[in-house]
Amino acid sequence: MKELEEITVLRASKEGITNLADAVVTEMPLTIILNDEEIVTLLCTPLKLDYLALGFLKSEGLINDKGDVKKVEVDQEDGIVRVETKDNTSSLVEKLYGKRTITSGCGKGTIFYNVIDSLQCNKIELELEIEVDMVLKLVRELQQRAELFQETGGSHSSALCTPKETLIFNEDIGRHNAVDKIVGETIMKDLKLNDKLLVTSGRVSSEILLKTAKLGLSILISRAAPTSLTVNMADELGITLIGFARGRRMNIYTHDWRVKR
Amino acid sequence: MKELEEITVLRASKEGITNLADAVVTEMPLTIILNDEEIVTLLCTPLKLDYLALGFLKSEGLINDKGDVKKVEVDQEDGIVRVETKDNTSSLVEKLYGKRTITSGCGKGTIFYNVIDSLQCNKIELELEIEVDMVLKLVRELQQRAELFQETGGSHSSALCTPKETLIFNEDIGRHNAVDKIVGETIMKDLKLNDKLLVTSGRVSSEILLKTAKLGLSILISRAAPTSLTVNMADELGITLIGFARGRRMNIYTHDWRVKR
Repeated sequence: MKELEEITVLRASKEGITNLADAVVTEMPLTIILNDEEIVTLLCTPLKLDYLALGFLKSEGLINDKGDVKKVEVDQEDGIVRVETKDNTSSLVEKLYGKRTITSGCGKGTIFYNVIDSLQCNKIELELEIEVDMVLKLVRELQQRAELFQETGGSHSSALCTPKETLIFNEDIGRHNAVDKIVGETIMKDLKLNDKLLVTSGRVSSEILLKTAKLGLSILISRAAPTSLTVNMADELGITLIGFARGRRMNIYTHDWRVKR
Repeated sequence: MKELEEITVLRASKEGITNLADAVVTEMPLTIILNDEEIVTLLCTPLKLDYLALGFLKSEGLINDKGDVKKVEVDQEDGIVRVETKDNTSSLVEKLYGKRTITSGCGKGTIFYNVIDSLQCNKIELELEIEVDMVLKLVRELQQRAELFQETGGSHSSALCTPKETLIFNEDIGRHNAVDKIVGETIMKDLKLNDKLLVTSGRVSSEILLKTAKLGLSILISRAAPTSLTVNMADELGITLIGFARGRRMNIYTHDWRVKR
């Protein structure tokens, strides 16, 4: 299955209607099976489904690192990723089911337990620094790499970077999936994260911030807007939150001491 | 609680850093309690929480119309909406719990059961028609009314319209919530829907389309992109899907016979 579908649309304007060759981003259901237990079905873009599955499980608190993962099998045709862990199934699933009551159907992903978890997160005090020019450069790189968005206008992108360069990049129809794919890739590649930061195209709601916090990243950069809860939690968690990073300027909401003047 | 928070941010550019008065959209947790049973906690914007709760329950298939609703109590301070129905609790909750297994934590709301449900939806064959100029006018009105977005850049908006004018309008941090608020308002006001259409600011993933289909609306207009699954389902369900409706032009993806040349 391709990440986009070529279609013909009618382009309509006051001048009339004409046929137009166009492309739409592919949306497919992906079922994640953890130790033979069906955990969830996401709707996503068929790119790096193994990363998405591991990132989702990490963000849900069901796995911690590569050491927990015994096996990952992707069946792209049937839309299934099977993950085997060394950990105990029932305890994992209980953890998830325990969370469901307050997180299911939040309309923007599995959020709320994260808001609670955040109180247990350690405040991040990393000395990582980034220059204003570099923030703008990394956001430019995010846009340049976002080929699926350029073709369809229907996807979000996220990247894991150092203060100097982009390391890994992912796209998906969902803001959350694009970040979870980064989370999963960091796990698969067992990356050291205390000198890394996250750049994302989408609005920063609290659960995006908390995915960042769970990775222990100290800087989160977005082209778009944060919410009030995100700003308050970033302040509390010690994370440098940068929004509306576009063109030549940006807004720094919290812990600006990491941004070099 | 206000729908936005006034804050001070640092505006940084290559020229330096200055203080700036700014506003961020409010994100708050809202717990929906149905017949004394806690159903879900959403993260949302504190506007029209009663509509959001009823719209969520309708989209989940837990209520059908105003006739099902006995009482709605909003406790904005504590972030709770209590809904009482005339229907039987346990059966309702079973329905939801039955769905959770495949829908929880989908990263973009409770989606997948909708994809399955769609096969049970009746094909929509309404004769409703709209002129190209009116599509563009309704989208302009959506932008003009989106004051929260104009102030914060962090919200989505949706409107229920006739082919001539905007009837109701809602904003929220979430694409799904903004649509669910419309769904809830149509229920509370017991609106006749077969001559109405939905206009939304956000990307149209399959579950947004299916919220539309569940209302029996025959035309869905978005300023943004649809996904492949959305286009395929709109075709199957008989819905006229219009995307990228901006400025002077739009793309018509399906059932263009409802758009007057």
